[in-house]
Amino acid sequence: MTDPALRVTYTVRAAPGAVAERADALLLEQTVELPRRALRGRAGAERALGRVERIEPAGDDAYRVTLAQPLAATALDPAQLLNVLFGNSSLQPDVVLEDVELSEALRAALPGPRAGLAGWRELTGAAGRPLLATALKPMGLSPRELADLAATFARAGLDVVKDDHGLADHAFCPFEARVTACLEAVERAGRETGRRTLYLPNLIGTPERVRAQLAFARRAGAPAVMISPMLLGLPFLAELARDPGGLPLLAHPALAGTGRIAEVLLLGKLFRWYGADGVIFPQAGGRFRFTRETCLGIAEALRSPAAGIRPALPVPAGGIRVERAAELLALYGNDCMLLVGGSLYEAGPELERRARELVEGIARAAREGAAV
Amino acid sequence: MTDPALRVTYTVRAAPGAVAERADALLLEQTVELPRRALRGRAGAERALGRVERIEPAGDDAYRVTLAQPLAATALDPAQLLNVLFGNSSLQPDVVLEDVELSEALRAALPGPRAGLAGWRELTGAAGRPLLATALKPMGLSPRELADLAATFARAGLDVVKDDHGLADHAFCPFEARVTACLEAVERAGRETGRRTLYLPNLIGTPERVRAQLAFARRAGAPAVMISPMLLGLPFLAELARDPGGLPLLAHPALAGTGRIAEVLLLGKLFRWYGADGVIFPQAGGRFRFTRETCLGIAEALRSPAAGIRPALPVPAGGIRVERAAELLALYGNDCMLLVGGSLYEAGPELERRARELVEGIARAAREGAAV
Repeated sequence: MTDPALRVTYTVRAAPGAVAERADALLLEQTVELPRRALRGRAGAERALGRVERIEPAGDDAYRVTLAQPLAATALDPAQLLNVLFGNSSLQPDVVLEDVELSEALRAALPGPRAGLAGWRELTGAAGRPLLATALKPMGLSPRELADLAATFARAGLDVVKDDHGLADHAFCPFEARVTACLEAVERAGRETGRRTLYLPNLIGTPERVRAQLAFARRAGAPAVMISPMLLGLPFLAELARDPGGLPLLAHPALAGTGRIAEVLLLGKLFRWYGADGVIFPQAGGRFRFTRETCLGIAEALRSPAAGIRPALPVPAGGIRVERAAELLALYGNDCMLLVGGSLYEAGPELERRARELVEGIARAAREGAAV
Repeated sequence: MTDPALRVTYTVRAAPGAVAERADALLLEQTVELPRRALRGRAGAERALGRVERIEPAGDDAYRVTLAQPLAATALDPAQLLNVLFGNSSLQPDVVLEDVELSEALRAALPGPRAGLAGWRELTGAAGRPLLATALKPMGLSPRELADLAATFARAGLDVVKDDHGLADHAFCPFEARVTACLEAVERAGRETGRRTLYLPNLIGTPERVRAQLAFARRAGAPAVMISPMLLGLPFLAELARDPGGLPLLAHPALAGTGRIAEVLLLGKLFRWYGADGVIFPQAGGRFRFTRETCLGIAEALRSPAAGIRPALPVPAGGIRVERAAELLALYGNDCMLLVGGSLYEAGPELERRARELVEGIARAAREGAAV
């Protein structure tokens, strides 16, 4: 191995007497994909072949295996990096991808957030408190109905109103009509209230369609957009993040539940390295089953200082009750965005009042120092 | 629900008394993403809201739940279809995505294979026996070294020689130099032997890079290419499959081991519907852990007749020993491509002889009627 290493940690199930061989097989699988006896006489393979750096016990018949891989193997490409991390071994159920350490050269080859946490503060103008967001839903409404909801939330003072991630270019709600109507609605409400609410369209489709949606959203004046990187492909996230004609990206975790890539790594690190400015994740205690520790780990990974890469905004979501907002503020501090959806919608005709109470409640809690 | 349904089957873990509610929550999660009480007064939601069609016991505290979803919810888009199938519920560990039935309208909205199984037969000219393929490896070799290997395999009479899926645009082996050298090598060998061997470059990168690689490969005369749909994003597969400037696509399963999408569905159905002409999958008994039943299920799904969509080529791989080739022929019949890698490379300086024996062994076995 002739260049600085990429460190990749896995949990591997193996019997004590078999783990060294299993770790070596994992190493070979991720790059040269040949058994050692078949590498004889192929001197070039050394350019791509890393080494097993560490094997530590991690419970009964489980081990943490750390591989050092040569940077050259990644070709400094976002798709090939994924491949080196977990391409073939994702098909082996005894392996979980736990953690990754990037060298500086590799980090520089990935875009990282365009605007990051600070960018959302600038865009919204919100200071000294967490940001508050909601989603436009349910799927099935027309552009007009969604725009009316957007106006309601904007009047109530929410910072961000985003499309639900299932809003596509539907026959009953075409993308361009929706974006135009919703941008206009929050703009008008802002003129009334003097506060700014960002409307974020959801982009979804094949790469060409998403590029066309992005271009339209930008021309129409959208301040940022949302995508689901695991639906669209993580390499496409990296491409959009680096595009000079792009916008800040809020990342949604749809299809991210692989079960065998640690959530903190996928949502907290990879999403950020690949260019997400903010990352939505399911809050513990909601209708998903992430633990509190996982949620804090994701938030910490998104916000941690790192040379050459902006911190990104943690966005806990997924069944957050209005009543829990102050508790989450205590958990995450001010540097997050609370995404509250269903719990607001349950207010029915009282939607605006409930949204306003949420906004005021958070402002009060932040003033009273519930925030860290 | 006002239009023909998309049927989606999940296995859900739930107690007997709780399964009806769990199934309804799953239904809501995949489209409208609101609890029923929050849907009151939102008449439009009916356009997007499907129904729970069936709940059947599937073992202790496990149920097969079939949802009927309205086609309109998918927006007839490949990315949004994935979202409706498993977007949010992929984050819920009590749910496995088991099977999908497409209506004709939805199938028509997906590209399906461009050339399919019959296309590979035409391209190779091989009849009355399975196709034989190998991979160029290990990562680390130069274009010249890989081209020499390609020539060796072509002289031995293999039908297809593909890049290993880890061959990217590496500094030590640039994409364009590799493709040029390998195409030239199999062409020259073909003039000597009078047989045709296809060389398939591996495309990997962000969508823009992959498009540039595809354009180069096409101009250089590549007959088909390989991609890894789960690394690049399934929607991008659909885009490439529909592109008039595209080529037949061999799909590699890297990063496909989600554990919570049934392998037969993902590799046998979704890959085909989204446009793969052939699909590589790990053969049972190799170094991955797919069962024989799963492998046969994938092959059957890829080849099954279906209106308006070409059958695709099953490509068992992943630690297939040369000695097992005849057994696999008996298992799959002639309509498959056996991908043998490491087991050939272990022959070292005897590589060409071993490859030739494989070619002759399969021809003999097919003649002797081991095939079905």
